[in-house]
Amino acid sequence: MPPTLGFVTNPLDRQSTERDAVPMSALKSDPRTRAVLIAGEIPILAEGDPATALLPLDALLRAGELKEEAYLGLLDGAPVIAALAAPEAAAAFGEGTGFRAQDLRSLAMQSALPPGELGILAETKALLHWHDRHRFCANCGAPTAPGAGGFRRECAGCGAQHFPRTDPVVIMLIAHGDRILLGRQARFPPGMFSCLAGFVEPGETIEDAVRRETFEEAGVRVGAVRYATCQPWPFPMSLMIGCIGEALTDTLVVDAQELEEVRWVPRDEVVLMMERRHPEGITGPNPIAIAHHLVRLWLAASQSEM
Amino acid sequence: MPPTLGFVTNPLDRQSTERDAVPMSALKSDPRTRAVLIAGEIPILAEGDPATALLPLDALLRAGELKEEAYLGLLDGAPVIAALAAPEAAAAFGEGTGFRAQDLRSLAMQSALPPGELGILAETKALLHWHDRHRFCANCGAPTAPGAGGFRRECAGCGAQHFPRTDPVVIMLIAHGDRILLGRQARFPPGMFSCLAGFVEPGETIEDAVRRETFEEAGVRVGAVRYATCQPWPFPMSLMIGCIGEALTDTLVVDAQELEEVRWVPRDEVVLMMERRHPEGITGPNPIAIAHHLVRLWLAASQSEM
Repeated sequence: MPPTLGFVTNPLDRQSTERDAVPMSALKSDPRTRAVLIAGEIPILAEGDPATALLPLDALLRAGELKEEAYLGLLDGAPVIAALAAPEAAAAFGEGTGFRAQDLRSLAMQSALPPGELGILAETKALLHWHDRHRFCANCGAPTAPGAGGFRRECAGCGAQHFPRTDPVVIMLIAHGDRILLGRQARFPPGMFSCLAGFVEPGETIEDAVRRETFEEAGVRVGAVRYATCQPWPFPMSLMIGCIGEALTDTLVVDAQELEEVRWVPRDEVVLMMERRHPEGITGPNPIAIAHHLVRLWLAASQSEM
Repeated sequence: MPPTLGFVTNPLDRQSTERDAVPMSALKSDPRTRAVLIAGEIPILAEGDPATALLPLDALLRAGELKEEAYLGLLDGAPVIAALAAPEAAAAFGEGTGFRAQDLRSLAMQSALPPGELGILAETKALLHWHDRHRFCANCGAPTAPGAGGFRRECAGCGAQHFPRTDPVVIMLIAHGDRILLGRQARFPPGMFSCLAGFVEPGETIEDAVRRETFEEAGVRVGAVRYATCQPWPFPMSLMIGCIGEALTDTLVVDAQELEEVRWVPRDEVVLMMERRHPEGITGPNPIAIAHHLVRLWLAASQSEM
């Protein structure tokens, strides 16, 4: 794993079989406990060298009323809890407070935190976002309450239990000889191209999802697919499943609803894009993203074939 | 892929970018359209040699009021829709009707349908189960309505859109030299052992989920993990991600809440279990399940090392 790849390292011992047994009040009276706080979607850090997302418990007092709390487990034997505050609470952590609010993508891009803290923040953000959008029972419409240390929601109305959601997404480097398929969405930074991606659908294998999404978005048929690596991606709560696939065809039929542009990029141009020296000014995917890692893997593999 | 492995083959062209554009009324007036019908959790088949889950549209009339309909896409150019009826509707497809109701697990175990129809049924069951348990908005509690040909639910109250859920689950063959880790849950058929498994949690990689679940359930530390293959598992809506992992330790500390028994089974006994000739009468995982395939892969790989 390259050190830049975000959110893949999570050093927590999740204590997942103990969650029902540990009351939040006990965690909050333990002086070793640290809190990971998100205001809306934005992490709060304690300033320092280095800064840290593992806050002392009294930092939570600044945040006003908390919307949600969860028990994340142990870090080097000390408890870690997660807390969700309203978006407005970020204002209480501004300049001169010894804290700052900074969005998770830019924290990863700047390597502003140790890799393990980015992983803990990814877990926190995915879990708390799920709570924030799942306060009612999808089965009967009644309000639900958190349980299992924040890893479940329970409906007193119909008895349903709801568990945090993680959406599997395929992201694929598709190769055709010495060229790879790269596309850009309109929302990407100017000039940036990346691998194609899409949600795995009900009743679908990872490999079939790679083939379907590639055909839908670019009109390219894919044969062999192999898994490469994965990455939690908390925007809002995906698991990116990185694959490398072999194209069987190369004619492009682009889905203009999804993608602004798709190209076959030859190896020498891929190298220039990754080094940010391409004459058109186009670049590869961001180093925090698994797509960047897939391109690097392919470049290394195709290097060894040369 | 061995032919017995269930639900991995799905020949539908999902037409996922066209779902918003095709009205159900048009699909139902197309004489080529076939319907896949589930009563509660139970698929309905048309008898014949072979039987088929692809029913003529008029079969839906027997089912009474349908609770949900979805557009699954095209099969050899002909539309396929999915329909959910009440559990009681199964009674209308009994002996002498030319139809039968049969649960999906036994259909797979008996290879009672072509592999592709099992895959279509898996998609249907996962999708319709999601609808049936998600009729209300998790964000605001208001009733929701289906959209996008049944691949979305929409809330008129708060504007939220909800998409079908697929839960990533890791299932792992853990090896320590020439032994593998097999366990049994109390709900398994008598004598059956299988691979350990568990849900991927928020902010967790596939590889870390393998390590965490193995340690939690059996007390065994796992080092290297590699992806082997995957399987949609519609009970109710999981994606089984099959991995092979190398144990670093072999002392067992069993989570008795999850597992009745866990053992290290030597290769020669694994062979006897898979051939149903083990002197204790214990057996390996069912041939329809990915765990069976993982054991076969490991046996084949360890064979070639001998």
